[in-house]
Amino acid sequence: MIEYRNLRVALLGAGSVGSQTARLLLEHADELASRVGAKLELAGIAVRNTSAKRDVELPAELYTTDAEALITSSDIVIELMGGIEPAKSYIIQALTSGADVITANKALLAEHGDELFEIADQVGAQLYYEASVAAAIPILRPLRESLAGDRINRVMGIVNGSTNYILDRMDRFGDSAEDAAAVALELGFLEADPTLDVEGYDAAQKVTILASLAFHTSVPVASVHREGIASVTLEQVRAAREAGYVIKLLAIAERLADPDTGVESISARVYPALISRQHPLATVHEGKNAVFVEAEAAGSLMFYGAGAGGVETASAVLGDLVSAARRHVAGGPGVAQKAHASLPIVPVGSIETRYQFTLEVADEPGVLATVATVLASHRVSVETVIQTASTDTEASGTATLVIGTHTAREASLSATVTELANLGVVTAVKSVLRIEGI
Amino acid sequence: MIEYRNLRVALLGAGSVGSQTARLLLEHADELASRVGAKLELAGIAVRNTSAKRDVELPAELYTTDAEALITSSDIVIELMGGIEPAKSYIIQALTSGADVITANKALLAEHGDELFEIADQVGAQLYYEASVAAAIPILRPLRESLAGDRINRVMGIVNGSTNYILDRMDRFGDSAEDAAAVALELGFLEADPTLDVEGYDAAQKVTILASLAFHTSVPVASVHREGIASVTLEQVRAAREAGYVIKLLAIAERLADPDTGVESISARVYPALISRQHPLATVHEGKNAVFVEAEAAGSLMFYGAGAGGVETASAVLGDLVSAARRHVAGGPGVAQKAHASLPIVPVGSIETRYQFTLEVADEPGVLATVATVLASHRVSVETVIQTASTDTEASGTATLVIGTHTAREASLSATVTELANLGVVTAVKSVLRIEGI
Repeated sequence: MIEYRNLRVALLGAGSVGSQTARLLLEHADELASRVGAKLELAGIAVRNTSAKRDVELPAELYTTDAEALITSSDIVIELMGGIEPAKSYIIQALTSGADVITANKALLAEHGDELFEIADQVGAQLYYEASVAAAIPILRPLRESLAGDRINRVMGIVNGSTNYILDRMDRFGDSAEDAAAVALELGFLEADPTLDVEGYDAAQKVTILASLAFHTSVPVASVHREGIASVTLEQVRAAREAGYVIKLLAIAERLADPDTGVESISARVYPALISRQHPLATVHEGKNAVFVEAEAAGSLMFYGAGAGGVETASAVLGDLVSAARRHVAGGPGVAQKAHASLPIVPVGSIETRYQFTLEVADEPGVLATVATVLASHRVSVETVIQTASTDTEASGTATLVIGTHTAREASLSATVTELANLGVVTAVKSVLRIEGI
Repeated sequence: MIEYRNLRVALLGAGSVGSQTARLLLEHADELASRVGAKLELAGIAVRNTSAKRDVELPAELYTTDAEALITSSDIVIELMGGIEPAKSYIIQALTSGADVITANKALLAEHGDELFEIADQVGAQLYYEASVAAAIPILRPLRESLAGDRINRVMGIVNGSTNYILDRMDRFGDSAEDAAAVALELGFLEADPTLDVEGYDAAQKVTILASLAFHTSVPVASVHREGIASVTLEQVRAAREAGYVIKLLAIAERLADPDTGVESISARVYPALISRQHPLATVHEGKNAVFVEAEAAGSLMFYGAGAGGVETASAVLGDLVSAARRHVAGGPGVAQKAHASLPIVPVGSIETRYQFTLEVADEPGVLATVATVLASHRVSVETVIQTASTDTEASGTATLVIGTHTAREASLSATVTELANLGVVTAVKSVLRIEGI
């Protein structure tokens, strides 16, 4: 049954994903061999310190500090070190020495993906990276292969488990943002330095990868409009719940078409937004991830599962490993990643979305007419208005207006809010959130 | 950019999926060509009657009644005729003439998949069939490739949209089974002969395909335990809702391990069951499909989307077409489908599950003790008991017992119900349902 020579697999890094990948590779060796048609031999694990304590106990002789020797003697190289360097140099070394490469390094791909795919294409090697977005959830292969005959119009995902955990606790348990973050930190859902998660950098890296794949276009991470969850308050979360919404940090990649010319462009953005509780993404709790895809023919699809975790991420790494190994056995150059569409990327002001904003206004006749006039002047159409007299004693003599708009250009919506904030009758703009997923 | 010769694509059948596939293939020709690196030329559409009226208007010269000539002159053959013959003969003819084949024919695969895969493997051709299960939802490729490095323990899906539509209406709108079926028929969710859907045959064909892929084992459709939804009453649906459950027709493929020897086997089955309203499958409404996968490393994953429809199914067909075409351009024999694990398939009596049964009993002292003794004699452990006095005037002097069990062997649970039904104090067994998804 196994007729092919052994394939040598190099592992770079022995953190939580790396050590679980090694364990599964050793434990399931026979099963993997029968799936591939060749034995996968773990040639070594490159680490900085061979005697460091690890989560998973593995044969000591596997560890080496000589990454370069390991790389050049292997058929397939798995990079799980993270960070830009030396990961990038090692991947280039592996590709140019003819090895296929598997990586979970979203930061590296978001910054230097184009360069790495170009090198892989030139030398006829493959670069696999399913584990870089949403960990165990198969999302990149479905986008790249299953939907390859369709046209993807929108990818909207909850791709950061830490911020989803925080927002979910605020929504379901009424935690303040600080309390929710403290629990997330204690349970390991949040890094000691939470900036990458909370400010949306992690989600921006992932939407870069998703958008590039979905739209066959190179999307630099710098072109992603990014807002984190630091400004989301418990009051907003509660008001959202009462109105039938939930606030989620959404990573959105969208195809836009000029209504007159039909010329297409794309938008990639990350921000907290309201989505209806009836939307499938609303039921994504705790640290789970989900990616909602809208395609022209397939309609709406959702992919749901664990978005982090050592063993969960290792599942995606091993899936890529089996693909790479099968390709070795079967031959053929595989699928190159090319930005053949090269659609222009538009700034966030050009997208269409809906706003919900909460204004504290003077409780006097004519205020609503004044506000409505401003909206009309920006051609922003109102879907719902809820006016309530203030119950806050400090704000007596004021009322609260919650206005939900129809779809309009982001730039118009944004300008509307700025003008409203400067009206004499508006004493405070208490909340501005986009509404997505309709 | 396009350097490869044109690839000739034959289409067999011009029903709703076939005509949408042809339309998308023609409309997106340029985009598909740039994804594949070769132009995909629709060589012809084989139909029985070239002048029949079709949903989609296509160039008349594409239609032909000479399927064999079309097949032998094509690189890739798409079979969307349905049924066993002549579809099977045409697929064999295509494979043996060296063409790759794409099919959405679940009935044919469930009955003759092994034979067709064997032929494909012998001649080095590929047989693609993503569209055969859950239409547009990418589920087969993720099972086959993304999770190829993991061990799948359970696949549990809502894979029949018609029955989900009926059960969903009963649950959400309180329709009787008959009324819900009438609406489903009117809206096109149900065939004029609903037997294949309602009796679970369609779901059994799909679970055959899912189980074979997930467990690398040939699973004959005759080995699938099958119960349809014909016996599900509105009363059961309402009682389930009150208890925090929803009734769904579930297709389940599961890996079992003998607790003593560790020897593995599998079970494939279709039946209506209770699942918690907190389970992701509980939110699958109307005619939607979803497949929930539990893997050793990846944990729980869910794939959600449209499970039927011409254009949605065409999306999956075109995804397979792009894969097949890329393989032509890139070369290499692709991934063979082999039943290398060949796990034994056990009868339903050997599985472990939970039961919820509703008994009408004499309202007299000692009845609960009698019932509990029967449960204990079968080593079935009780999780919940709810006893209510009957409000039904015809059944005065009786009470209702709703018993939820812990996990036990199906055979023990089934024998328990039989023995209870024969007890003098039990006047009726009003409902027996399994509980899944815990």
